[in-house]
Amino acid sequence: MSETALTGAAGQSPLAIICGGGSLPFAVAQAVGARGRRVVLFAIRGWADPHEVAGFPHHWAAIGQFGRFCRLARREGCRDVVLIGSLLRPAIWRIRPDLETLRLLPRVLRIFRGGDDHLLSGIAQIFEEHGFRLVGAHEIAPDILMPEGPLGRERPSERDHADIAKGLALLDAASPFDVGQAVVVSDQRVLAIEAAEGTDRMLARIAELRRNGQLASAARCGVLVKAAKRGQDRRVDLPSIGPRTVEGAARAGLAGIAVVAGSTIVAEPERIATAADRERLFVLGLREPARGR
Amino acid sequence: MSETALTGAAGQSPLAIICGGGSLPFAVAQAVGARGRRVVLFAIRGWADPHEVAGFPHHWAAIGQFGRFCRLARREGCRDVVLIGSLLRPAIWRIRPDLETLRLLPRVLRIFRGGDDHLLSGIAQIFEEHGFRLVGAHEIAPDILMPEGPLGRERPSERDHADIAKGLALLDAASPFDVGQAVVVSDQRVLAIEAAEGTDRMLARIAELRRNGQLASAARCGVLVKAAKRGQDRRVDLPSIGPRTVEGAARAGLAGIAVVAGSTIVAEPERIATAADRERLFVLGLREPARGR
Repeated sequence: MSETALTGAAGQSPLAIICGGGSLPFAVAQAVGARGRRVVLFAIRGWADPHEVAGFPHHWAAIGQFGRFCRLARREGCRDVVLIGSLLRPAIWRIRPDLETLRLLPRVLRIFRGGDDHLLSGIAQIFEEHGFRLVGAHEIAPDILMPEGPLGRERPSERDHADIAKGLALLDAASPFDVGQAVVVSDQRVLAIEAAEGTDRMLARIAELRRNGQLASAARCGVLVKAAKRGQDRRVDLPSIGPRTVEGAARAGLAGIAVVAGSTIVAEPERIATAADRERLFVLGLREPARGR
Repeated sequence: MSETALTGAAGQSPLAIICGGGSLPFAVAQAVGARGRRVVLFAIRGWADPHEVAGFPHHWAAIGQFGRFCRLARREGCRDVVLIGSLLRPAIWRIRPDLETLRLLPRVLRIFRGGDDHLLSGIAQIFEEHGFRLVGAHEIAPDILMPEGPLGRERPSERDHADIAKGLALLDAASPFDVGQAVVVSDQRVLAIEAAEGTDRMLARIAELRRNGQLASAARCGVLVKAAKRGQDRRVDLPSIGPRTVEGAARAGLAGIAVVAGSTIVAEPERIATAADRERLFVLGLREPARGR
């Protein structure tokens, strides 16, 4: 790959994308590239998909190699950094720190305590202090944000709307505890709240309860509701959905998915719409509430 | 078994115990029997343990045989009814209603909507209308309630106390949504919130995340916190712990368990203390907060 530090179109510096797992990083890279800005992927070993990574200018790094990232990103002329993709909080003893990370270790250990917001805002600060600007994927590629209204053909029923309202209210109440961005509400009953396990596992658990005959509600009932936490640092942790979310919701026997428009990242909206139509699920972008979730 | 409708000691009518799964129903039956009151178990097929049931005067019934229950309980001279034991909400199409239940079906369908509190208070009302008095296991056998202070040798650390405080606050915030009586907080991070899956499955999920290296916290960190929902009908749904809870918490790598004294049922406290000592977990009964959880 090229090691030249050319600025992209419109005089912008190339964008560093630190890539976790899933398809989101590549959706962002493509959207940014389509706007004429050069991107450089910093793919995290063990998380980023090597096959997809190969399609872009890239470097590989392990978790903990912050010094390596700084060196390479500077050499590439990057100033803006996007952190994106799934990266379940790694066990701290799995981190193989390089020298720079080692120097930061006492701080890293401190920010590893507490909830996700805490972790992520601590990480953002460290980037800033090293001369990078952490930017949200949604700022750099607004076309990856969920639009208002439905993707696909299906529409929520009145019962679904009531479930969505209950789900949003519960997420709001749980928000100060820096927990879960997702709940499942079925006919006014809360079936699951997401915490450390992530959305896919939460949906798999509902599918299992249903298979075992331990859920009362009929199939095609219930909504997965996702919303960013209040006051969440949007640069590092916007909720996201992808085709896999639709498949998980279908296996869980839900009627649909509702997310907040403008603050949810949507990987591959066309594939989501196709999957939703095939599974006969609705996927709805809710108007962002005034209080600014 | 005897079909005579003798009143028990002290002129009391025999106590009808509708038995779900687990060991709690038998702990209650024994505690009540030890006080000289006759008990009659109404064991729910597929849930109650036949081996344990055999040790008490009993009848078997399927879910949905409410008419059968009324007939037999009246014949036994029972007036007070305790509903106890695990009984994950059954899929409604699995209910084989008898005539009386069929008559009640529209109401049953209505109360099956919404959260557990709603379900249970609806059921309580139906019992009352049929001339029975639904009583809480804790009223009839106060010795099965968790006492204040520790069971076993271990004591929570300061970090554990901070986790307990966060857990109680989160349960309180989620309480109006009629969801979960249990959370797991580890070093101020919320790892899991219980909803439809129940405590055992929630603990198993944390054990799995830990096995997969997806939890940052060290082992022996984190507390399972259980508390009754605010305004919960205590006659039908007090939180409970048993030796299995201790084993689940140990597999999840937690430091201990904290429950509210006086409003948590404890099956087999001696076995809990033994298991807690073996696993080096604390099991703590918290003073009930003034607001009357």
